[in-house]
Amino acid sequence: MRFNSLDDVHAFCRDLPGGDARAADAAALRQQNLTKPPGSLGRLEELAIWLARWQQDAAPRLDRVTIAVFAGNHGIAARGVSAYPAEVTAQMVANFTAGGAAINQIATLTGAELRVAPLELERPTRDFTIAAAMDTEDFLAAVDTGYRAVTDDCDLLVVGEMGIANTTTAATLCAALLGGGASRWVGRGTGVDDDGLSRKRAAIEAALTTHANVLGDPLAVAASLGGRELAAISGAVLAARQRGVPVLLDGFVATAAVLPLARLADGALDHCRAGHVSAEAAHRDLLRELKLDPLLDLGMRLGEASGAGVAILLLRAALACHNGMATFAEAGVSGASDE
Amino acid sequence: MRFNSLDDVHAFCRDLPGGDARAADAAALRQQNLTKPPGSLGRLEELAIWLARWQQDAAPRLDRVTIAVFAGNHGIAARGVSAYPAEVTAQMVANFTAGGAAINQIATLTGAELRVAPLELERPTRDFTIAAAMDTEDFLAAVDTGYRAVTDDCDLLVVGEMGIANTTTAATLCAALLGGGASRWVGRGTGVDDDGLSRKRAAIEAALTTHANVLGDPLAVAASLGGRELAAISGAVLAARQRGVPVLLDGFVATAAVLPLARLADGALDHCRAGHVSAEAAHRDLLRELKLDPLLDLGMRLGEASGAGVAILLLRAALACHNGMATFAEAGVSGASDE
Repeated sequence: MRFNSLDDVHAFCRDLPGGDARAADAAALRQQNLTKPPGSLGRLEELAIWLARWQQDAAPRLDRVTIAVFAGNHGIAARGVSAYPAEVTAQMVANFTAGGAAINQIATLTGAELRVAPLELERPTRDFTIAAAMDTEDFLAAVDTGYRAVTDDCDLLVVGEMGIANTTTAATLCAALLGGGASRWVGRGTGVDDDGLSRKRAAIEAALTTHANVLGDPLAVAASLGGRELAAISGAVLAARQRGVPVLLDGFVATAAVLPLARLADGALDHCRAGHVSAEAAHRDLLRELKLDPLLDLGMRLGEASGAGVAILLLRAALACHNGMATFAEAGVSGASDE
Repeated sequence: MRFNSLDDVHAFCRDLPGGDARAADAAALRQQNLTKPPGSLGRLEELAIWLARWQQDAAPRLDRVTIAVFAGNHGIAARGVSAYPAEVTAQMVANFTAGGAAINQIATLTGAELRVAPLELERPTRDFTIAAAMDTEDFLAAVDTGYRAVTDDCDLLVVGEMGIANTTTAATLCAALLGGGASRWVGRGTGVDDDGLSRKRAAIEAALTTHANVLGDPLAVAASLGGRELAAISGAVLAARQRGVPVLLDGFVATAAVLPLARLADGALDHCRAGHVSAEAAHRDLLRELKLDPLLDLGMRLGEASGAGVAILLLRAALACHNGMATFAEAGVSGASDE
């Protein structure tokens, strides 16, 4: 195991590698010379330069794209905070394996490899209104699972999750680390009714009271108020940074999962982009806090990396233009006049 | 030629075929049964149902996607309203033919066939500050070129344009048909400086004065204040409606091109979606007027169907999920509880 203590994770986050400014500059220069008015491809230009920076290559590639979906079960599910029963987590993992879920279709369409990692589904985290969701060892094991899911030969990592009740977990992490109380972060998730919404709010408030003594420590919050699939996502995002792999984050839960990293170190998420903004309203608020500008806004709220999975297509479009277009000189096209 | 007079176009617009409500309903029912919370794929669900309605098939397809780029030259270019010289229109058409432009890369990536139709580039429209841009015959010939570009076997039409100075043309059409004066609709286009912006404003204001007597007639406006590539786009969009082909509109110019149709008949654009919203600020305003909610918002402002071309990928994602996902019953996944 890479991390033997929370201090190890702290130390890792204080010493994150940067991107390659020279590759980014070379990519930006190429964009200026392609047959289009400067800047006219908008974010597609920014994305090509961002990929160049983190892949350390002025001509970035997307030959090997990994979609990692982590699944976990939550003690808090017993409090009626989801429209679906807890066994749906394992049922959906089976659906991923059988190829029937949305993310299977999206992975095939985008030419990505889907890796699904269930994290001890038969052993839910503890109900965090009463006790810590995970002890330190349990938390670090989940981080490690995520860390080991990322390989050196990966050109892009897309992270997502599956876990009944985990929008409650995500909202609790946000409330703990960003403030504003339960009402700021709670939403209907997969579709709870008004009573379910009240139960979510009550669970979050109870958790904040129970764990009042750890709210100043992002990693203790991630362990005490988080979930295994969220911990695994944070581990995968750290591994990606270490290995020079850019990351697309999926929705509210996946973004909440990396919030503790952002609280530990400025720039910890510089190698990440938000694939989309979820219909779960708290996601937009969280992205604003993290200064992440989402690539897509399609009213999706499914999780399982589906929104970020669709955003892979935008990166492919960005690179198709970046690597394939002619320059003004090559095409014999006149540049802008000085008028 | 299909249209021998503006009255023929009027009559055609008053008798547009509707979509297939039964196919749309069947597609919506299928979406309810797929392994996801209802509505959780957001716009991807809406897009699948929209494709079903206009393709008249509950299991729509995108086997044959056509990107049609129409190119025209504008007399108004002589007034210094663009950052680029007028010869760039023909140079970019050559770049399309050689495969070096952004839209070539996007067409290849999205599996679309690119058709480029230059419209008498050697014969620019007249300077519409002084005279009608086109006489009726000239206008109808351009509409007809667009109409003939759409074939029955097409599953999706994507329309875009190339034409130095044509954001001035588009802004003039908007000002003529929607009001608010030049300042509401003018923008930097490919990147004019402040002086160029002033010249654009002056040209639009002069045009509105010169043609004050036709401003109540959308087709007369399209002929007198439009351009050949815009007229061709309107013809292609009418042909698509006639042939049951859904349409993705590109940016400001392509959307302004179909504004006259929307003014002629309610629902004339029901078979169209806006592929993206351009960085040219007037586009957002125009889309709002047309009640079109853009699929992408990536700060693009290149034209040549590039934004809508990227949006093809979202339709492919929508259909991959719609046609490929398992239902709850097929996958043995529990539905939502009644709580």
